[in-house]
Amino acid sequence: MKKPINIGIIGTQFMGKAHSNAYLRLPHFFDLAGTPVMHTACGRNEAQLGAFSEKYGWQHQLADWKTLVQNDEIDLLDICTPNNLHHPIALEALKNGKHVLCEKPMAMNVREATEMVEAAETAGVVHMMIFNYRFVPALALAKKLIDSGKLGTVHHFNAVYYQDWLVDPTFPIVWRHDAKTTGSGAHGDMNAHIVDLARFLVGEFEAVTGVQEVFVKERPLKSGSGMGKVTADDATLFLARFRNGALGSFNATRFANGCKNYLRLEIFGSKGSLCFNLERLNELQYFNLDDAKETQGFTTILVTEKDHPFIDAWWPPGHIIGWEHSFVHQFATLINGIAADTKVVPNFYDGLRCQHVLDAVTDSAQKKRWISIKD
Amino acid sequence: MKKPINIGIIGTQFMGKAHSNAYLRLPHFFDLAGTPVMHTACGRNEAQLGAFSEKYGWQHQLADWKTLVQNDEIDLLDICTPNNLHHPIALEALKNGKHVLCEKPMAMNVREATEMVEAAETAGVVHMMIFNYRFVPALALAKKLIDSGKLGTVHHFNAVYYQDWLVDPTFPIVWRHDAKTTGSGAHGDMNAHIVDLARFLVGEFEAVTGVQEVFVKERPLKSGSGMGKVTADDATLFLARFRNGALGSFNATRFANGCKNYLRLEIFGSKGSLCFNLERLNELQYFNLDDAKETQGFTTILVTEKDHPFIDAWWPPGHIIGWEHSFVHQFATLINGIAADTKVVPNFYDGLRCQHVLDAVTDSAQKKRWISIKD
Amino acid sequence: MKKPINIGIIGTQFMGKAHSNAYLRLPHFFDLAGTPVMHTACGRNEAQLGAFSEKYGWQHQLADWKTLVQNDEIDLLDICTPNNLHHPIALEALKNGKHVLCEKPMAMNVREATEMVEAAETAGVVHMMIFNYRFVPALALAKKLIDSGKLGTVHHFNAVYYQDWLVDPTFPIVWRHDAKTTGSGAHGDMNAHIVDLARFLVGEFEAVTGVQEVFVKERPLKSGSGMGKVTADDATLFLARFRNGALGSFNATRFANGCKNYLRLEIFGSKGSLCFNLERLNELQYFNLDDAKETQGFTTILVTEKDHPFIDAWWPPGHIIGWEHSFVHQFATLINGIAADTKVVPNFYDGLRCQHVLDAVTDSAQKKRWISIKD
Amino acid sequence: MKKPINIGIIGTQFMGKAHSNAYLRLPHFFDLAGTPVMHTACGRNEAQLGAFSEKYGWQHQLADWKTLVQNDEIDLLDICTPNNLHHPIALEALKNGKHVLCEKPMAMNVREATEMVEAAETAGVVHMMIFNYRFVPALALAKKLIDSGKLGTVHHFNAVYYQDWLVDPTFPIVWRHDAKTTGSGAHGDMNAHIVDLARFLVGEFEAVTGVQEVFVKERPLKSGSGMGKVTADDATLFLARFRNGALGSFNATRFANGCKNYLRLEIFGSKGSLCFNLERLNELQYFNLDDAKETQGFTTILVTEKDHPFIDAWWPPGHIIGWEHSFVHQFATLINGIAADTKVVPNFYDGLRCQHVLDAVTDSAQKKRWISIKD
Repeated sequence: MKKPINIGIIGTQFMGKAHSNAYLRLPHFFDLAGTPVMHTACGRNEAQLGAFSEKYGWQHQLADWKTLVQNDEIDLLDICTPNNLHHPIALEALKNGKHVLCEKPMAMNVREATEMVEAAETAGVVHMMIFNYRFVPALALAKKLIDSGKLGTVHHFNAVYYQDWLVDPTFPIVWRHDAKTTGSGAHGDMNAHIVDLARFLVGEFEAVTGVQEVFVKERPLKSGSGMGKVTADDATLFLARFRNGALGSFNATRFANGCKNYLRLEIFGSKGSLCFNLERLNELQYFNLDDAKETQGFTTILVTEKDHPFIDAWWPPGHIIGWEHSFVHQFATLINGIAADTKVVPNFYDGLRCQHVLDAVTDSAQKKRWISIKD
Repeated sequence: MKKPINIGIIGTQFMGKAHSNAYLRLPHFFDLAGTPVMHTACGRNEAQLGAFSEKYGWQHQLADWKTLVQNDEIDLLDICTPNNLHHPIALEALKNGKHVLCEKPMAMNVREATEMVEAAETAGVVHMMIFNYRFVPALALAKKLIDSGKLGTVHHFNAVYYQDWLVDPTFPIVWRHDAKTTGSGAHGDMNAHIVDLARFLVGEFEAVTGVQEVFVKERPLKSGSGMGKVTADDATLFLARFRNGALGSFNATRFANGCKNYLRLEIFGSKGSLCFNLERLNELQYFNLDDAKETQGFTTILVTEKDHPFIDAWWPPGHIIGWEHSFVHQFATLINGIAADTKVVPNFYDGLRCQHVLDAVTDSAQKKRWISIKD
Repeated sequence: MKKPINIGIIGTQFMGKAHSNAYLRLPHFFDLAGTPVMHTACGRNEAQLGAFSEKYGWQHQLADWKTLVQNDEIDLLDICTPNNLHHPIALEALKNGKHVLCEKPMAMNVREATEMVEAAETAGVVHMMIFNYRFVPALALAKKLIDSGKLGTVHHFNAVYYQDWLVDPTFPIVWRHDAKTTGSGAHGDMNAHIVDLARFLVGEFEAVTGVQEVFVKERPLKSGSGMGKVTADDATLFLARFRNGALGSFNATRFANGCKNYLRLEIFGSKGSLCFNLERLNELQYFNLDDAKETQGFTTILVTEKDHPFIDAWWPPGHIIGWEHSFVHQFATLINGIAADTKVVPNFYDGLRCQHVLDAVTDSAQKKRWISIKD
Repeated sequence: MKKPINIGIIGTQFMGKAHSNAYLRLPHFFDLAGTPVMHTACGRNEAQLGAFSEKYGWQHQLADWKTLVQNDEIDLLDICTPNNLHHPIALEALKNGKHVLCEKPMAMNVREATEMVEAAETAGVVHMMIFNYRFVPALALAKKLIDSGKLGTVHHFNAVYYQDWLVDPTFPIVWRHDAKTTGSGAHGDMNAHIVDLARFLVGEFEAVTGVQEVFVKERPLKSGSGMGKVTADDATLFLARFRNGALGSFNATRFANGCKNYLRLEIFGSKGSLCFNLERLNELQYFNLDDAKETQGFTTILVTEKDHPFIDAWWPPGHIIGWEHSFVHQFATLINGIAADTKVVPNFYDGLRCQHVLDAVTDSAQKKRWISIKD
């Protein structure tokens, strides 16, 4: 009998749904060392919490996360709240010896993230950051190709993350527009992903310089009366130098009309190149300088073959998977890590390193100069 | 409390897995009028059956389908067996008053399919054919556009279904190569899909002429000793006339090197056109002759918007879904149909119409002339 | 001093323009063994002929082709007329010992084409058919890859040629709609190209079966008063068997709304595959089964590298060429052949072989059965 | 009789060839107000000059540009030299009252460019900068769409220009690596293009911040003995703010392995978006927020329709043109401007504005901070 791992989740919105789905599907597609148990869901809105719990089969419900983190039956605390709550919840959970899974961006700033790393190390538990795109098969394959030297020296890492849901000026204010709850807008939400992928695939950042913009300064309040001030960035662009000499370009915006969830990577190395697009996430473009000159070009790899990362758990070649599967893959790693009591990646340290970059970009945008990333 | 619908499934291979996954996910994403209950799994290989049942949570196991179809607790019989068993199982299930879900192709020939339709009508139950691609959001949108007149008169329906898993001559003989168990090869397995989509999107066939080929005549036996004769087609191509005057071109092959599960539709009408590719199933290409001349062209619709068919059950725009989701969508229709005791489509009649076309193509290939499709 | 080759061209429309452009550009980009001289242009419409001659620099003008073919100064006769004139002009030109370049389709039928081949052989001159797509660098590369065995045994050759200029029912009658002047419509105009490419890339045809359709039976007369009957096909589709065992699918239509000049080839072999699209004619898609399994896929070769066929005459890699360049490449071959008095390909024999296939398809469409291609 | 315009060209390399081709083709495809006469070619290498003149039909040859600019017969001076000669040649030509056409980048720095503008204004002649990509039909259409308000307020202009010819460290030193002759590397050669397109399509720059890199610091000398130091940038990336509030991202590199001449624009506005890729230069991607929500998406416009800019001079729809045609289009504008003695765009003023941006980027890269663009 495999060890049950009791999970408490805080947050019942988009990520609460994505995580619930991942827990549900996990046992049917992966052989795990432990059994995830959907123990307790926690959220402030009682009606929402009830519907959420019933829909996804959470066994218990709790309105107050402070009670949840003290519940002896809970093994793993899964934080899907707005960003300003990551830090207090994580610290309490760690104090109570829980394993912690945290959505990105890790925290409101480096100070918070540093405290979270320290607390996690003190607690000696398993901690993990949700950077689920590392677990998209095409990007896991990219990592494998780069690590095996197929790209040679990387010269360029160019990433964009384009969405368009804010281009409509009548879209009302939500927590994601308020710097107090979100820290930042497109920056923390979208650059966090591509910064992490840059670290995953290329390495640590040395210095950055960026620019941030709010295109629509005021938006209607949800209440319907009056306007609220937008304090979180609509777009953040930055340039980077990596420690290994590569140059980077990053561009996150919610004003890219026509782009829904378009995350593109272009990685150019001395021996090959890779391109990726999240809206066609089953594909990886690969240029191999070792190919015969006559037939060189970018190859579209449909990353659904038996030996490609993660994918053999699902369907035969050519039967594509979706966005949500990345969570299932990440959660398999987490559950096995907890069952074996071993460290997993990406963890809080990765969250902290990402936070260093995010904070430096914000700083650079204010000071209009390059900012070095601290060790 | 919603009405439980007890399901018995026969077959534990690829389709057994795909169907199980759909039953599991259904309640978490769709509001259903009934509750699917994974009651009993049935399969001849005991070890496989045990693993299958445990992995997907089937409550009971049975080796003999004849016992299953008589079980009073079973409401819905789900047939995922090799093709030659569809007919006998369906007839017995219908005789016992079960609702029946059947994988494609429906039967070994029109005679069998006709008997199945008659038995289903006599039984007065809900019957459904798995033509899951009708439930891909992009193709459901295609249907909506065509039905609303956006394409005008359809002149051409060109479809291909390319796979490559048989191009390797050392790939061993399996049941899919034996005409006795499979009826046909690429034809029944792959043309069945695109024939159904043609009927779904354009209408009934009038006449066909085709060609069939076995490129690799003998393959190694799985036992490892000796070779077996391949009796099912590796590729079947045919031309068609539709009753509404459109021309059709169909091409199914397992020898399209580099194509894994590439199903492409091209539909040309007097007012617009549509293209689709299953390996990028979240996208639909649409040409609208009403667009301003200056900016006309094929538009790539990412079919993940809130108002697109089926998709709102899942994630925000741009967060793509996979192949497997088409089954969930189809099963939602089925479960609601059973709960409401109403007819669903595609049903056995659609299976029969498809079988008429498949049989006529085979006939035409042998006689080397056009064959009319019977009413 | 290189030998001047005096050219007489008959026809001042689309092809007259394309050929003139090719003659003009030839000396600036290719080292030729002879010098093309634009001697005399010939056409029935005097005003058009004058404008044409002046624009492209033809030195002389003639209204009557019968005079032209007897002109002792003319070395090469270039036939760009409607199809029904190919045969009489070519025969007269050959009788007068001229080299002959002829637009496709070669003739109205196999009988005419056979006479043309015989006359050309008797005359002992250089004869060439315009099948300019053989000279698109990407397709010349395709030929090279196939000939070197990169595709192994070819199983499938699937070709479409889609245009949409006739989908508008108010488009008036032109000579291309009249079987008397054109022989056939989409069939001779478009299938001629892809039939030739099939022969070029795969080999000879064994048998065919096809279907032809006129979707819009009557069209307005150009005069503005009344309607005329359309006697040339709007679309012709056919299936084929090749002598080497490959299967073929062909589809030519002028009713593919949204497709302007979309010619697509898909060639599947036992060791690799190729795809091509004329609207992106600088690119060739190549699947190589010898690539590492992990990174297999279709490679988009931008066929603009120094060592790719023909292209080095033009610009550096990545600087793409257009449709018209294929004529320049073909004409370089022709001029060098004439200068050296050697046979060139594709020649009248290729035109005849193509005509055999075209006629057999028409025959099959009428008889609704397969027709064998004669030796 | 149209006025002859006698041209003197300086430079016989890549651009000399591209310009010669454009002069040759111009009269055959455009109705011009003047007649370009290829009068004199000028270059330092006598053998090369002879071959060049003969191949493209230049009537005279001259080794010394100082003689050429004083030749009374010359009307138009066409400068295709290395960048450091643009300024002295242009000044002398203007002093002698010649019309001047100049390759990009205009000059070594803003000071030189300013002097050139002043001299041109004093001379009262027609002056033009080669920014030929403005004359690609798809980009001319982009301009038209933006000017007519189809994009609304532009929020983002993201451009990359990727080549890969320097990624090979054994590629020898040429003048393009030496800051003394070239001013800059990828920056002046490639960013010049996309900076001009930004001005053309979006408007003036306000401020920039960039980074420059030489990845391979030393390269073999062409002589074969020893290594030379690379002083021109391999890659230059920068961020920008436009005066109208848009953000910009620019990225020019010769180290993008697998990219031959890949120039991509992405322009996101409040009402629509545009994407373009120079390697598929006949296509423009357009997202129109006014389209029906159900069928919104990026439309691939094949910019070969009769009413699209420039293209009607060539072939029927779908018959694509190449990179070189952009020069023909630009030269038609130039010749007509000279014949009518009217101002043309882009002219030296545009060259100067571009130079301001280029210089500011270089400055910002050295100072590691944002630099404002002067009026």
